[in-house]
Amino acid sequence: MEDGAGGGRPSEVENRKGRGRRAFRFAPRDLLVYASSSSIRGVLERLLSLLDPNDARPVIPLAHGDPSAFPCFRTTPVAEEAIVSAVRSGEHNRYAPTVGLPSARRAVAEYLSRDVPYKVSPDDIFLTAGCCQAIGVVLSVLGRPGSNILLPRPGYPFYEGRAAFDGLEVRHFDLLPDKGWEVDLDAVEALADENTTALVVINPGNPTGSVLSYEHLKRVAETARKLGIMVIADEVYAHLAFGNNPFVSMGAFGSIVPVLTLGSISKRWVVPGWRLGWIVAHDTNGVLKETQIIEGIKGFLNISTDPATFIQGALPHILENTKEEFFNKTISLLRETADMCYTQIKEIDCLACPHEPEGSMFVMVKLNPAYLVDILDDDDFCNKLAKEESNWLRVTFAIDPCSLQDGLSRVKSFCQRHAKKAESFTSKEETNTTLPLCYTNMW
Amino acid sequence: MEDGAGGGRPSEVENRKGRGRRAFRFAPRDLLVYASSSSIRGVLERLLSLLDPNDARPVIPLAHGDPSAFPCFRTTPVAEEAIVSAVRSGEHNRYAPTVGLPSARRAVAEYLSRDVPYKVSPDDIFLTAGCCQAIGVVLSVLGRPGSNILLPRPGYPFYEGRAAFDGLEVRHFDLLPDKGWEVDLDAVEALADENTTALVVINPGNPTGSVLSYEHLKRVAETARKLGIMVIADEVYAHLAFGNNPFVSMGAFGSIVPVLTLGSISKRWVVPGWRLGWIVAHDTNGVLKETQIIEGIKGFLNISTDPATFIQGALPHILENTKEEFFNKTISLLRETADMCYTQIKEIDCLACPHEPEGSMFVMVKLNPAYLVDILDDDDFCNKLAKEESNWLRVTFAIDPCSLQDGLSRVKSFCQRHAKKAESFTSKEETNTTLPLCYTNMW
Repeated sequence: MEDGAGGGRPSEVENRKGRGRRAFRFAPRDLLVYASSSSIRGVLERLLSLLDPNDARPVIPLAHGDPSAFPCFRTTPVAEEAIVSAVRSGEHNRYAPTVGLPSARRAVAEYLSRDVPYKVSPDDIFLTAGCCQAIGVVLSVLGRPGSNILLPRPGYPFYEGRAAFDGLEVRHFDLLPDKGWEVDLDAVEALADENTTALVVINPGNPTGSVLSYEHLKRVAETARKLGIMVIADEVYAHLAFGNNPFVSMGAFGSIVPVLTLGSISKRWVVPGWRLGWIVAHDTNGVLKETQIIEGIKGFLNISTDPATFIQGALPHILENTKEEFFNKTISLLRETADMCYTQIKEIDCLACPHEPEGSMFVMVKLNPAYLVDILDDDDFCNKLAKEESNWLRVTFAIDPCSLQDGLSRVKSFCQRHAKKAESFTSKEETNTTLPLCYTNMW
Repeated sequence: MEDGAGGGRPSEVENRKGRGRRAFRFAPRDLLVYASSSSIRGVLERLLSLLDPNDARPVIPLAHGDPSAFPCFRTTPVAEEAIVSAVRSGEHNRYAPTVGLPSARRAVAEYLSRDVPYKVSPDDIFLTAGCCQAIGVVLSVLGRPGSNILLPRPGYPFYEGRAAFDGLEVRHFDLLPDKGWEVDLDAVEALADENTTALVVINPGNPTGSVLSYEHLKRVAETARKLGIMVIADEVYAHLAFGNNPFVSMGAFGSIVPVLTLGSISKRWVVPGWRLGWIVAHDTNGVLKETQIIEGIKGFLNISTDPATFIQGALPHILENTKEEFFNKTISLLRETADMCYTQIKEIDCLACPHEPEGSMFVMVKLNPAYLVDILDDDDFCNKLAKEESNWLRVTFAIDPCSLQDGLSRVKSFCQRHAKKAESFTSKEETNTTLPLCYTNMW
């Protein structure tokens, strides 16, 4: 149901008319009412409602990509104590400038300058209430009537949700599982037209778990430049890379094409609830300024909320004083659990991992329902798994190893229980049926 | 300059074409680029740029309505220590549900139930990142094509900014200075049509400093009911009332008309930078649910950021354990500074206060440029005042008494310096010229 033009749809509450009163005629924007069901949180809530309350086993969250609940992933005391000091100072109870506290912007600029071959200026940093708000700001700025944006598939559905709200047409390009989830650049070139504004790249990948190489990122930048579009690089999982490819920031190619990187402390510091993120302009040629994209970002920040001032106030200390030991510990844990996940999933007949995860907190798992009795597709799989095993297949490995082991065992039990007997496979074709990837909605 | 339909305005950066590359064609939404100049923060930044850096005198902020910078207004240690405990517990680093933590919603419901003759349900509470986000959510939900919203004048320009972004037509009704800034209900009835969604009331008033009576609020509710529109009651200054009228929540009339109250801890606890607010549905007849406004709110929250989880975690302790003594101290200070402001402004010839402030942190001041040489209007007044006295007329009294005294003295000096000589008044008419009220942009 589309929002109609010229007046909206009245929501007449008829039984309250009378005595000179008009009926209530207000109504919400339709797309907001129907958006919930396809958002990550909407799907999660639906799955949660299927859990059996009498099942005493703990829920194993293999969906949400939020390891902060597990003691082994607890953030560093350096970050917590930085917050404590900032609150107790009494100096950060006030409104911050809409672009962020100067000290916080300087600290982020210095922090990110380590990832690129030039000095990032504090003026190119815009603080946001988490990476979610960063996404919202950028899409709102780009939401001119008739414009479109290129999004990866599989991807992060929050982009689709916000793009719909902001009136941006979405066009999807595939990520190639047989090429380590690289961007299908031919598809990108075929999709872009004169109304295309940007191409979004999520690296390290959510939900793919891939870490793209320097060479590939450079090709992405060059392609974007050729098409006259910017690159929006979602780097919320920056530095969470534990495979062959080191993390490379798209900002390194800011001299080739205008880049907006989006980031936050949510993942690397395991504090997604602190809501402290940023948008950074990497654009040595000044295109984003010249085209007034920067003015648009500032304009939208002027009519939006901000991250809490004292969290901004704590940021310099957090970024400058967190020890490498903490980062290494997190990486080490993620490497261990990613490996456990990948290895055990390979032992489950109906599931397959096209590419071993090398970063972020997720892995893409391919479901072949042909191996199962009475499972239609990935949605059906998740719903029934939740119901029977009080668990759901979200395939994040960012949980403590014991819980992950438990969760994977339950997934295996479920699959065995629903497995077709060997004699019921009628043809080779059926056993090799590929289906839309079970990229369960992840956060 | 309007956003065009069907493709947007290309921002062709011509000197970068060539070698098979398309020109960059992205551009921001026009209204975001031009919005900054009329926003509160935009005006403040412009005034700040006029300050003389060689003037050693401190800047006296009579604009911003943020007393948290002054030690006498420092928030209660109960609130600060609640944050410290929440952070150190390590239990609130995770994502919160989009509607808010259950414990925080329960606490807000209990807190607000003291203001209305029924028990507010936690299900009717939606936590937001400050009252700013609450405004953004509600206007986004109501932004159906062709809809309009009724806003008070003078008012809080953030509403106009967000309404423009959300495609909501704005219609202004006056507040009546000779009637204590009450709503002109005849104007409201004349303005509303079948596309009107809501009427916004800010009480205690920003920028008026008024506190509306129970009887008047009831009439507002009844008028809205008659027109079939909801009331959006901005109660961010709730309980900051120190005059004849006690604070009454519009939520008390939720059985007459659907009401959404917007609030936060920003003002009463003097922590605007903490960004913890709420939207509350007061609607005993269930209209907001039936019309799916509630679903729309939840839907928008699903594609938006949230208040920091640990601040939500601290909220029950803050709301339940803050001592009355702290509230009384703040009220007492505001009463003192409001009185100082009102009394001294009366002694300045070119300025007048139509109505003594009784609440919030602001007072409306009427400027008569006819008394001044070479001052054209309120904008000109503010600009020149900033330049000459390193100060600006924002007329908030929520600052410490000594600074307020200093500020008002400088305003007086400025006015005397620019005053016309008595013999230069040519007629009675000139001395009684009334001009658009100097409701300087306030926060």
